[in-house]
Amino acid sequence: MSEARSGRRRPGVRIFHVRPIGFVRSPFKNPEDLPPPALAPPRFFDRVRGEIVVFDDLAPGLESLDGFSHLIVIFAFHRASGFKLRTVPPGQSRPRGVFATRSPHRPNPLGLSVVRLIARDGPVLKVSGLDMIDGTPVLDIKPYTRRDRKSRATSGWQGQRGPSAR
Amino acid sequence: MSEARSGRRRPGVRIFHVRPIGFVRSPFKNPEDLPPPALAPPRFFDRVRGEIVVFDDLAPGLESLDGFSHLIVIFAFHRASGFKLRTVPPGQSRPRGVFATRSPHRPNPLGLSVVRLIARDGPVLKVSGLDMIDGTPVLDIKPYTRRDRKSRATSGWQGQRGPSAR
Repeated sequence: MSEARSGRRRPGVRIFHVRPIGFVRSPFKNPEDLPPPALAPPRFFDRVRGEIVVFDDLAPGLESLDGFSHLIVIFAFHRASGFKLRTVPPGQSRPRGVFATRSPHRPNPLGLSVVRLIARDGPVLKVSGLDMIDGTPVLDIKPYTRRDRKSRATSGWQGQRGPSAR
Repeated sequence: MSEARSGRRRPGVRIFHVRPIGFVRSPFKNPEDLPPPALAPPRFFDRVRGEIVVFDDLAPGLESLDGFSHLIVIFAFHRASGFKLRTVPPGQSRPRGVFATRSPHRPNPLGLSVVRLIARDGPVLKVSGLDMIDGTPVLDIKPYTRRDRKSRATSGWQGQRGPSAR
């Protein structure tokens, strides 16, 4: 890890500063409360409800979300420290490159989930499909569009076992 | 915009620093070369080929990507400056909240595209479905999994005109 870290201090590579636009309210209070998606029963997360709360001054940016059934949420894995370029996913026996997994221990601790939008109440989005823990900083929200839907996608090593890539 | 910016300097909100893990090689050299996705012909971008080049020291993180047909790429809108909470998407007549669009002018200039993986050559991923410009900094790569595929998604204001939300 230290090797990779030092390699990243590349002169001339621009650093971007991102700030939370809001946070997640989730029934999962700690990482241990959340089953590894790869090992969770099918559709387990579909039933998990929670909220995405956007800071008041940014709430006008949520207008016109009504009618979108799904949202892409980019968030920070704020509890992750450091990264591993190769990691053994839960339920797997061999290591995989981190960019072939949804591990939180990534060079940039960015997470992504597609959630279902149930309702909006001002700055609060009621959603299902949550797999983030309570207090997770939200960095961006985007509408899920038909260009994000790839009906013929194949899933590499995941096809060998388990339904997900976390 | 200045109003929203000052509102963002919220004490206690943690700032995250993200660094490029690589960059995009694209036939689009400038933003003007790229048609607004909402106005592009259907499947226009499916035919656009290019490369994602990951810095050498992070390339081991790409192992095991083979067999995934699609990747999620999180990138920086590095040419965007500032943001607008309400924006009029191309081809639309009324403003929409920025989080209901894929506009580059967002509170955090994070972009997301789902691309098709054609082949990997060491640290270089050959892909199609590119809608980024040449030199775009790549922040993360994730496998596209069946949990990202929402077959019954609806598209809000987009349904009223045009196939996309950019």
